[in-house]
Amino acid sequence: MRGGARALPENREPLLVKRFQGGFMKIGFIGLGHMGAPIAHNLIRAGHDLRVYNRTRDRAMEFAAEGARIANSPAEAAIDIEVLVTMVSDDRALRHIVFGGDPDQRPAIAELRPGTVHMSMSTISLEMARELAREHLERGQYYVSAPVVGRVKAALERKLWVIAAGPAGAVERCRPLMEATSRGISVVSEEAWKANLVKIGVNFALASLIETFGEAFSLMEKSGVAPLDFLHVVNESFQSPVYANYGGMIAERRYEPAGFDLRLGLKDAELTIRAAEDAGVPMPIADVVRNSFEEEVAAGNGRLDWAAGAEAARRNAGLERTRRAGG
Amino acid sequence: MRGGARALPENREPLLVKRFQGGFMKIGFIGLGHMGAPIAHNLIRAGHDLRVYNRTRDRAMEFAAEGARIANSPAEAAIDIEVLVTMVSDDRALRHIVFGGDPDQRPAIAELRPGTVHMSMSTISLEMARELAREHLERGQYYVSAPVVGRVKAALERKLWVIAAGPAGAVERCRPLMEATSRGISVVSEEAWKANLVKIGVNFALASLIETFGEAFSLMEKSGVAPLDFLHVVNESFQSPVYANYGGMIAERRYEPAGFDLRLGLKDAELTIRAAEDAGVPMPIADVVRNSFEEEVAAGNGRLDWAAGAEAARRNAGLERTRRAGG
Amino acid sequence: MRGGARALPENREPLLVKRFQGGFMKIGFIGLGHMGAPIAHNLIRAGHDLRVYNRTRDRAMEFAAEGARIANSPAEAAIDIEVLVTMVSDDRALRHIVFGGDPDQRPAIAELRPGTVHMSMSTISLEMARELAREHLERGQYYVSAPVVGRVKAALERKLWVIAAGPAGAVERCRPLMEATSRGISVVSEEAWKANLVKIGVNFALASLIETFGEAFSLMEKSGVAPLDFLHVVNESFQSPVYANYGGMIAERRYEPAGFDLRLGLKDAELTIRAAEDAGVPMPIADVVRNSFEEEVAAGNGRLDWAAGAEAARRNAGLERTRRAGG
Amino acid sequence: MRGGARALPENREPLLVKRFQGGFMKIGFIGLGHMGAPIAHNLIRAGHDLRVYNRTRDRAMEFAAEGARIANSPAEAAIDIEVLVTMVSDDRALRHIVFGGDPDQRPAIAELRPGTVHMSMSTISLEMARELAREHLERGQYYVSAPVVGRVKAALERKLWVIAAGPAGAVERCRPLMEATSRGISVVSEEAWKANLVKIGVNFALASLIETFGEAFSLMEKSGVAPLDFLHVVNESFQSPVYANYGGMIAERRYEPAGFDLRLGLKDAELTIRAAEDAGVPMPIADVVRNSFEEEVAAGNGRLDWAAGAEAARRNAGLERTRRAGG
Repeated sequence: MRGGARALPENREPLLVKRFQGGFMKIGFIGLGHMGAPIAHNLIRAGHDLRVYNRTRDRAMEFAAEGARIANSPAEAAIDIEVLVTMVSDDRALRHIVFGGDPDQRPAIAELRPGTVHMSMSTISLEMARELAREHLERGQYYVSAPVVGRVKAALERKLWVIAAGPAGAVERCRPLMEATSRGISVVSEEAWKANLVKIGVNFALASLIETFGEAFSLMEKSGVAPLDFLHVVNESFQSPVYANYGGMIAERRYEPAGFDLRLGLKDAELTIRAAEDAGVPMPIADVVRNSFEEEVAAGNGRLDWAAGAEAARRNAGLERTRRAGG
Repeated sequence: MRGGARALPENREPLLVKRFQGGFMKIGFIGLGHMGAPIAHNLIRAGHDLRVYNRTRDRAMEFAAEGARIANSPAEAAIDIEVLVTMVSDDRALRHIVFGGDPDQRPAIAELRPGTVHMSMSTISLEMARELAREHLERGQYYVSAPVVGRVKAALERKLWVIAAGPAGAVERCRPLMEATSRGISVVSEEAWKANLVKIGVNFALASLIETFGEAFSLMEKSGVAPLDFLHVVNESFQSPVYANYGGMIAERRYEPAGFDLRLGLKDAELTIRAAEDAGVPMPIADVVRNSFEEEVAAGNGRLDWAAGAEAARRNAGLERTRRAGG
Repeated sequence: MRGGARALPENREPLLVKRFQGGFMKIGFIGLGHMGAPIAHNLIRAGHDLRVYNRTRDRAMEFAAEGARIANSPAEAAIDIEVLVTMVSDDRALRHIVFGGDPDQRPAIAELRPGTVHMSMSTISLEMARELAREHLERGQYYVSAPVVGRVKAALERKLWVIAAGPAGAVERCRPLMEATSRGISVVSEEAWKANLVKIGVNFALASLIETFGEAFSLMEKSGVAPLDFLHVVNESFQSPVYANYGGMIAERRYEPAGFDLRLGLKDAELTIRAAEDAGVPMPIADVVRNSFEEEVAAGNGRLDWAAGAEAARRNAGLERTRRAGG
Repeated sequence: MRGGARALPENREPLLVKRFQGGFMKIGFIGLGHMGAPIAHNLIRAGHDLRVYNRTRDRAMEFAAEGARIANSPAEAAIDIEVLVTMVSDDRALRHIVFGGDPDQRPAIAELRPGTVHMSMSTISLEMARELAREHLERGQYYVSAPVVGRVKAALERKLWVIAAGPAGAVERCRPLMEATSRGISVVSEEAWKANLVKIGVNFALASLIETFGEAFSLMEKSGVAPLDFLHVVNESFQSPVYANYGGMIAERRYEPAGFDLRLGLKDAELTIRAAEDAGVPMPIADVVRNSFEEEVAAGNGRLDWAAGAEAARRNAGLERTRRAGG
């Protein structure tokens, strides 16, 4: 494999900050978007002590009512805590938080005490995860990748699935936090970036399904078979709630409101291709997905749910352009 | 759509042969392979009176013990019956049975009385289904396409799902037969070929999944993540028995014994592409699948289970060639 | 290879019709379209004696002035000749001419004397070429495939290149006709269908170039580099008149008048894919080309020059839809 | 376009170092590989005064005999010159030279006087070119991208074609150097990275041709037509020395010695895909090329000429593995 990460040498592992009494932890939480907000709520409900930061301060205010402290900067959220949890949209946002960007503002990483853990839940590139592991290690801090599988509804209902990787002790330290937000956890490696790889792989499988539905429904529609009739048979065959959900959205062309928007879907497709290049693996379906998502973003549909990636197949088949109003 | 079939004019519909007393039917059954045999058993168990034909006579003999009569030719299986059921591997085999091929043997279609129904359960081309509908209609007979979703195990357990299409009365006449072999039926059109299109679409979705697993597992394996660890997360996400089944086969590289072999999978991929051309729909994932399956067949793996189509991705990633012994 | 043709057994070869005195031949010529008309003119100019047939009789009349006899049916063009030359658009048209279709009209093949040669210049499927070889052989006639490379301008200027295959004696008999219309001849096999395969391969290379230009120009245009500036460098690199010609058409988006229209280009792409399936060869670029051409035909551009296949890449990149007026 | 470069503001342009008397220039030249060496020779022959640096010092020594001074480090080659010419294999190598990497060694950029020009002839990423333009500008230096089209033989014979972009005055300053090594120059933009984009586009066209030959020859070979017979017709059609050259290499499977190796070809394919992502353009043929090249590199053929990318198509068609010895 090209670009493989070095394993962290055992003897360089820093000591974990001693755990807070009573099982509850002091947590910095950054990123209160669609996914971050319900996760933060679940952590508060589980009894943890949060200081939250969000780029747009309004979204943070609702958490004050639940007892969270509002931080005025990423760095402030990182002061005097045991675990820093981040949940933002991409590499760029995470880099800005951790390493800073504004000259008049300290980066969060500078405030983290040695022994604290950064648990990153964002879907980021493998390269970014490797860099974070390296940089935190140099400062005697821990880095854990803990991206999640599931959409907003699953986050609200504590039904996410967490993919975790990082130094074993640090992963264990974060386990109560993961448990407070999910129905289960898969620990896949001691190298943090591999959790991100698994997350990228799951999103690839979802993206492949979206494109597959797009192609199959176009074939049905143009041949005179109702997509919903076809979907019924598919659902009887696959018996998957994911198929039922995405299949229904695509067959009925309901792409609003967006649970996860197509621009992010395109970003993930590009992460897949980067990971494939990194590992030296041809992935022709990833290429097809990237092209379809790119096409839809270029057509101005980037803010629809990523299920709208299926529209590229319809367009390319010359099917009419009308779309149902969002619901 | 290019090549669309004409709808059958109402007034040309022949009268159905009067139904046998007591709800049980006289059935000709041709094709006792992996899928056909359990279906025939289920029809006998449901009380129907079968005369069975198979190209290799040995496979037919076990049905005599259950009370079926053994026919010595396709034509003999078509004499004095209400419904002819056929379940063979491809267009060529079905053409040979229905229209004949040996100069010294009558084709089955010549023996069918007006008003009888041909219920074809094979996965065949749209063109073949249209031709059958046309030819039977000209002889005052009915043609129903009733391909099934499910593998051998589902057939044994009466858990297939039937996709049915054809003239409404003829489909109803066949309903007891479909019910005797399945857990449910989707009637998708009065044009028989559309059932075959839906079946092709379902197989396309399965083939897309096989290729997707092949690419994702190769990415994981070459990056140092165990495919089974990745599969665990995928299964938590999709919660589909089909994912669990195919994912397990591919992650463990168990491709024998073949439930449905790769040569047939390649045939289905080519049917998908033909249907896409016919309808004027670009289907890039179907192309990827076709190429991978073709590659594996060219590498000599055509008799493995079609899940082995996933091996193309491994080969192209340069992963080692060892394979688990079949089990 | 699946579907490979049997070689014709030497001893079954029929005797060639004795050649006309003086080197000039009596020729039936069917198909006076864009390509057929200049070829027919060149044959007349070379001194041969033509009886011409065209579906729309008007186009045939201009040949009367040059001394050709006008036939009223394909069969009439096949009476009392040495070589039947056909140049039509696809399998369907050729099948209609050779084997008939109207119940009140004799097919051309029924009029050909034993020993005459059918020299087919159309781009047809391998299957069609094999069937023609078989059917003519059964009647003691010869079949030669002689598709040409070059567009209308090359046909007018006698600058086509002929790809010939068939029984050696029959190919030699046709050589003066090929020479009268071309700047050179490649004899590639004694099996006629292989000339069609080579022609399909050349058109595949051209189609690949069209798609390549489409993608590269879209990349340049969307990045702010003028396609013509890029093309200048490409031309310096490849130094090919074909690149200059197609590159110029695509960079300037001149797709009218059509020298060879996109519907025919799509047909050829499908012939390539059929040949690839037949031989068991994955051809992912052929798939890409098929999809792009299909997309443009579905968008209503089937009557533009096939260079317009490059527009699919523009559309998919979200580049604006305006198009230069034809010139 | 995402990531588009800002145009350099006119008023921030630094003054060019005053030109050396007599038309000859003092040049630092870094990178004496297959392509760099003949270019350096041609510059010396044209009368310029070179100080050369190469990572492996042996290759530099031959230039001493021609009057060049040997520099012991990249920085040393950058002292007291008018133009720094670099010709290395990729971003990483160029970054190391310009910005340094060893703690005990000064980077070249630190030695360049304000007003000097860096003329970079390597095939690098757009991002790298933008970064170089930015960094040189900040130091009052000029950056010109001047990648070339042509292989080693063209370099030896002064038959390269130069693609140049950068601030107009700086490009003019470099013109005598470009003229000394090429048969012509295309100036495509005042933004340096656009020359790299054009170069990437030309290499994409070449890579597309390699894959196209791979697929077409596999189709011919598996169908029983000699690839060289097919190539003959292709050459008559395209009349391009590039087709004759690459077509001959691939038809005869001559991939050694490598003029430009497949690992570099894969790097260029990845640059194409990165540029496509950057601009928001789907490029499915670039994806196919990337996958085939990746497959061949994974199979251990990365050091063969990049024409060996065509072997992926053969492998996938199941054609036998023997290869001609290099010649």
